[in-house]
Amino acid sequence: MKSATTTVTIAASERYAYLDLTEDLERAIKDAGVTDGAVIAFCEHTTCALLINEWEDGALADFRRRVTGMIPDADVYYEHDDFAIRTQNMHEDERANGHAHVKAMLLSATSHAIPVVAGAPGLGTWQRLIFFEMDEPKDRRITFHVFGS
Amino acid sequence: MKSATTTVTIAASERYAYLDLTEDLERAIKDAGVTDGAVIAFCEHTTCALLINEWEDGALADFRRRVTGMIPDADVYYEHDDFAIRTQNMHEDERANGHAHVKAMLLSATSHAIPVVAGAPGLGTWQRLIFFEMDEPKDRRITFHVFGS
Amino acid sequence: MKSATTTVTIAASERYAYLDLTEDLERAIKDAGVTDGAVIAFCEHTTCALLINEWEDGALADFRRRVTGMIPDADVYYEHDDFAIRTQNMHEDERANGHAHVKAMLLSATSHAIPVVAGAPGLGTWQRLIFFEMDEPKDRRITFHVFGS
Repeated sequence: MKSATTTVTIAASERYAYLDLTEDLERAIKDAGVTDGAVIAFCEHTTCALLINEWEDGALADFRRRVTGMIPDADVYYEHDDFAIRTQNMHEDERANGHAHVKAMLLSATSHAIPVVAGAPGLGTWQRLIFFEMDEPKDRRITFHVFGS
Repeated sequence: MKSATTTVTIAASERYAYLDLTEDLERAIKDAGVTDGAVIAFCEHTTCALLINEWEDGALADFRRRVTGMIPDADVYYEHDDFAIRTQNMHEDERANGHAHVKAMLLSATSHAIPVVAGAPGLGTWQRLIFFEMDEPKDRRITFHVFGS
Repeated sequence: MKSATTTVTIAASERYAYLDLTEDLERAIKDAGVTDGAVIAFCEHTTCALLINEWEDGALADFRRRVTGMIPDADVYYEHDDFAIRTQNMHEDERANGHAHVKAMLLSATSHAIPVVAGAPGLGTWQRLIFFEMDEPKDRRITFHVFGS
């Protein structure tokens, strides 16, 4: 039984940008030397998400449009952004990102568990591991835990 | 430490149909000979999902109704289905399934990780592992990775 | 390779209340004696959820408000609650909780897989493991499966 935990640090170009992390996932498995087992992909943040879907610009644009329509980033009251009443977890660069917290909880896409088969992630033909930034872009840490034989 | 990866191929009868995969999950654990550990259930596709909930026809109909209300499959523009402008990943039997990609990303229900206790999935009284087809039905591969002792 | 499965039983104070389970998660890892590995957090129920996000009262209130707006708990027909026609899984204390089943399937937040690093969950700065009750409160079982070295 082998196991390894590695982290990549990424940053999207802008709010609502996507990044394809499939090659990072593949590299984590290769580096761990695991042929058969599984890998956990984990996002260490509260206003972005990890999706598994097709990388096709139209589908990704469709998702962005529908999610921001359901949970708007403007013209809606978010108590998280009401700095007149909020007291918890205030820090220097606090931003109005209540919408992104709501989106992240709605998606609940912080972690995925993926089988490892023949030394590669057992993804289907069209599946890619995709990072979705929903807040102002900044450095984000994605952790992979690979285990197996 | 034992581990095993197995795959079942299933097909729903129609769009928005559900299939109960709990017995397939149980069988994968038995076949792996694992008594205590965990199992990963993974769906290898981008327009369907794995749910863990109660198998009660009314609840499943309620969910179908609400999800299709939120993300309609008609009378809404999906860039993924705009074949006049799309260039990526086009293949012969390309279908207008942009709505199903959006639903799948919204649910983010590609994988689940479930404890294995006494040789069976550690599900609660009402929990079942349920496949939800959101696209035109076709063969779908669900992979189980079981590990433990 | 070590592994251990433990369960905590919790109860929220009211419908839509949150409970911070991060210390329970930390304790499960310590008790398992695992330094490097991963932990699965699993909710054994069909009308509540496990979220990973920031514990800030405003953000949690925002999420409650938006989710109940999208999937109302009143003034909407749920076939699951139509006891005149329903025949499956009826039990003595059956409650009108169709809305909570739909919310739970939409969130698909029954399980999470989290790396374990240096004997603790590899959560980011603001991440907490949060239980979200969406039904009338009652005893709920959350299972942790920890594995690694």
